[in-house]
Parts: sequence; C-alpha cells; structure tokens
Amino acid sequence: MDEFRFISKVKQNVYAQPSLLKGVGDDAAVFRNGQSDTVTAVDTFVENIHFSRQTMKPFYIGYKALAANLSDLAAMGAKPAYYLVSIVIPEHWSDIEIIDIMNGMKSLAQQYNIDLIGGDTVSGKELTISVTIIGFAKSGKARYRHVSEENDIIFVTGTLGDASAGLHILQNKQSFENEQYFIRRHQQPTPRVDFATSLNDISRIALNDISDGISNEAHEIAEASDVSLHLYAEKVPVHLYLQQFKIEKQTKWKYYGGEDFELVGTVSEQEWPKVQQIAQQTNTKITAVGYVSERKEGTVFVHNKDNSIYQLEKKGFIHLK
Amino acid sequence: MDEFRFISKVKQNVYAQPSLLKGVGDDAAVFRNGQSDTVTAVDTFVENIHFSRQTMKPFYIGYKALAANLSDLAAMGAKPAYYLVSIVIPEHWSDIEIIDIMNGMKSLAQQYNIDLIGGDTVSGKELTISVTIIGFAKSGKARYRHVSEENDIIFVTGTLGDASAGLHILQNKQSFENEQYFIRRHQQPTPRVDFATSLNDISRIALNDISDGISNEAHEIAEASDVSLHLYAEKVPVHLYLQQFKIEKQTKWKYYGGEDFELVGTVSEQEWPKVQQIAQQTNTKITAVGYVSERKEGTVFVHNKDNSIYQLEKKGFIHLK
Repeated sequence: MDEFRFISKVKQNVYAQPSLLKGVGDDAAVFRNGQSDTVTAVDTFVENIHFSRQTMKPFYIGYKALAANLSDLAAMGAKPAYYLVSIVIPEHWSDIEIIDIMNGMKSLAQQYNIDLIGGDTVSGKELTISVTIIGFAKSGKARYRHVSEENDIIFVTGTLGDASAGLHILQNKQSFENEQYFIRRHQQPTPRVDFATSLNDISRIALNDISDGISNEAHEIAEASDVSLHLYAEKVPVHLYLQQFKIEKQTKWKYYGGEDFELVGTVSEQEWPKVQQIAQQTNTKITAVGYVSERKEGTVFVHNKDNSIYQLEKKGFIHLK
Repeated sequence: MDEFRFISKVKQNVYAQPSLLKGVGDDAAVFRNGQSDTVTAVDTFVENIHFSRQTMKPFYIGYKALAANLSDLAAMGAKPAYYLVSIVIPEHWSDIEIIDIMNGMKSLAQQYNIDLIGGDTVSGKELTISVTIIGFAKSGKARYRHVSEENDIIFVTGTLGDASAGLHILQNKQSFENEQYFIRRHQQPTPRVDFATSLNDISRIALNDISDGISNEAHEIAEASDVSLHLYAEKVPVHLYLQQFKIEKQTKWKYYGGEDFELVGTVSEQEWPKVQQIAQQTNTKITAVGYVSERKEGTVFVHNKDNSIYQLEKKGFIHLK
C-alpha cells in the first residue's frame, strides 16, 4: 500500500478538537489556540527493542505507543489534543496489521477526544513507530521536574512494577495469579491524564511519568531541582499479587520496572491534601512515599523499615528484558 | 551512546524563539503563541530508501531532512519555529556521524532561527530519521491546496529537475557541466520559506511544495480544488544546463523529479502581479506556467508548443531511482 492510500485509509472523517483548522490532507495540519500553552513531545518504538509480536498484538502495539506519549503529556499537566504518526513498514507486516496498530491508537485517542492530524508511512526493514503528541496546558500551568523543594512530600499514583510482571507472565509459560490484570497493565497502560490535568489549582508541583522505573524518574526530579529524594521502601505502592514473584524480581520491578506510566511528583505539605482530593475526584490511587531533602546531589535514597538507608542506583530500564 | 547522553549532547544552550517556555530537558517542550495559527507536519527518511551514504555525507542527510520539513511549512505559508527529531541508530553508524546529521539540521535551523525542542534516539537496524516541524502562520493565512479556482495563473518557483540531475551525477562517474550546482541542489535544497511567508497580503493562493515532482503536486491541487491544471510544456522552468542530459531524462526529471522543494501555486490574475513583486523582493525566481480550468476532474494537462495536449500521468517519485 502506498503512503498516500494509507493515510487516507486511517484518516478521521470527523475531528473532535475545536481548535483544529486543517487535519490530514495538506502539507501540514493547522490549529488555532490562543488561550493555552502548547506542549509537545515525540516517542519512538522499534520492533524487538520496545515491543515484540510474541507478547503484543498489533492493536496493543499502537495502543501502548500512544499511551506512552499521553503519559509524557500527563507528566507536563497538559491535556492531549493531537497526534502525528510516522511508521516504517517492513514487507513482512501486512496492511491489516498496520491498520490494527492505527486502530489501537485510535481506540485510546477516542477516549480522550484526540485527533490524528498528520503522518508519514515509508517502507523499511524494521517496524518503527514514531508518535508526536501535541496538547495544551492552562497558561503558566505546565508542570516541570525542576520545581521540587526541600520538605516536599513525594507521591506516586497507582502501583509500580505491574507492567514488568505482565511482561514476565507473557514471556513465561507458567500460570500466575491475577494474570490478566498484569498483562493488561503491560499491554494497555492507562496514562494519568485525568489526574494530571485536574491539578490546575495547585500552585507548585513537580511531575514526572514513570516510563523507565521510579529510580530513574526520581533521579530526574532530584537532578533537575538540585535536591535529593528519600523514599520509604515499604510505602512504595505495589499490587498485592506482586508477592507471588521472587523477592528479587519484586524489588527490581518496583524500582526499575518500565512502562507502568504512573506519575511520581513532589508537592508542599500545605498542598498535599488538595492533591489527595483531586486524586479521589479522578479515581486515582495516590500514595505518599517519602520526602525531599536539601542535599544538592540529585540523589535518591531508600529508607528501610529497620531505619537502614541506601542510595538507589540510577539506571535506565531495558525493554523486553 | 545512550538516549539521555545523546540528547544532552545536541541540546541547544540558547533558544532563538521568543514563544518557547521549555525546550529539551523535561517530558515535553512547551511554547506559548497566542497570535498565530500553529502549523505542524512530520516527515520520515530511511537509509537506502530516501538517502544513501554513497551520495550523501551525514551532514547533508540531516540538512536535507530538515529542509524537506521546512518546505512543507513553506507550502502552508508558515514560518518554521521548532523541530523535534527521532532517530533510530544502527550499530554501524558512529556517534560522530549521528552528531554530523544533527549538525546538518542545526546549520539549516540557524539560518531560520528554528529551535530543536525535543527528540528521541533509539537503537535499531536501519538508520531512520523522523522530523516533526512546528511553525506559525498569521491567523487565517495558512495556505491550502483546495482554494484553486478557474482562470487562476499557475506559477512555479526556481527550476525543476535539478535535484534529480544532481543525484544522476552522483550515481555516475562521468563528468558533467555545472556539476556542483546540480549536486548542491540535491544535497542542500533551499526551501522557499522567505517567499512563502511574505505572501500575507495575498487574499487567496493555493500552494504545494514540489517534493515528488510537479506532476504529483499539481494533481494534488487539482484534486483538492476540484479543477484541472494546464501547464505549457515550454514554460515549465528548467536550468539551462539540464539540456546536457538526454531528452527523456529532462522530461522525466522536470515532471516527475523529486526533492526540488520548489513551490507550485495558483493565484488570480488580479493578484499575480503582487505575487511577482513578492518573489522579486525575496530574490525568488518565479514563472507563470499555465492556467486553471473548471474541469472538475482533478487532472493535469500539458500543452505542447504545437498545440497538442496530453494528460499528465499522476505518479509518485521513487527515491534513489
């Protein structure tokens, strides 16, 4: 299928966003948005590095690719509005599978009224999906990593390590308890858009999304804000059934597990009750997991129940491992 | 080199765009732009499909990738402001070569004060560069393909077929006249940004950039506007030295040659003198090449000097051929 036919095939007939002036069909898309700040990011996914056919149907590959981008926007406190998709298609992927990938994105996009406004499809050797996301934040209310301060409360949404457990289940033929939950968390993550875009009344909040494990993301906040983050080991939220896995796996997934797409943030003690209230209003599980200290090292510490403390290693998450 | 180190390596220290609030370094970039309409597109380039190391140094690969995107924005009458880059890097490409690709983009970006505000680098088997471009058009002045009307004058900027001649020269060991000119047109095309963004006083103008040959782009205008386009064969502008190539090659490159990144457009006879004036002011060669008829077929005709007429085939340009 050539590029032109492909784009017309996945083109929306109706657009949801009122700011859109021109969607797919010209050299570029056009939108008008005078009130808000525009927020944009790009994320790329390569077959057998970020996903594999063995563990992901095409529909989920698309779903998750867009979810990862929505999560980036959530971490900015921005409402997603538009996405553009570039796909490199190898010969061994059929048109139907590619359409399924696009349908996976569409199904998530429809939940948030997001429009596909541009794209490019080219042939190549390796399936590569690159998604550009564009959204809007209330003027001056985009949320950054560098605003964390001493004595802030550190919080986390949802539970951590679920997506890694899901991948483990998919890669092993054994049976596990609550399998479908963990698999769904791996294949169809829920970006925390509703919670993040309801924080407008909070005067200062540092936010980051957990795409590469809380260790990496907490380090990013600590480094950007020139502070240190202290996590209480037993408070970092995990799912009850994570206990069925070996303790080493639990620990690895909790701190270094990728693709949970939860949020980690820090906020003043004064505003913490408001954040809890917003979490409740948006049906978001939220947990206080530690505090921020003035140590200007950009480090992250874990405090154990026995009062022992160790420094968490900053290491990135490796996909499909 | 890991993703994080790479982005920090190519990150700008200073940004040129006044609307930027946050560049590289958080989950997404943020800008504020209340006055204009935002215009955005994405374009993807794969090694050995869109470019090859045999004919392009890494610097030019980057230069041309961004040029293609700027050309899309020019075709919308929009001023480029920001770009995001996603690169899939195979093992056989060195860090230095990748930095050279980014430097090629940077050198063009600096000419237009455009900022790199985001990106993603991942490993993979095939060098793939995906560029998202974001720019601004004066409110209501984005230029579309669908506004062409009967009796409009069709015009073209620059000369056509040069980039194809350049590729031919690079792929053949013979020597040719004016080689460097044609090679430069292939490796470092000049998007018509200055001309296109100076058209704000024109009330109605259809624009398209010639990335896949004038045949394809004229068809796109004809189809979108529900009219037919008529080109006078001898008026379609080519470089004097194109004559050194076989006549079949000249004809093929003129109508179907890709990557010249000139503009084709249509405008009313009344406004044509103003367009000519703007072309002069921006040092842009411009040529009237035909007229628009009301035939609602979306077709393109070529009128020969002997008054014979034939319908131009719509076919896409095939890269590296």
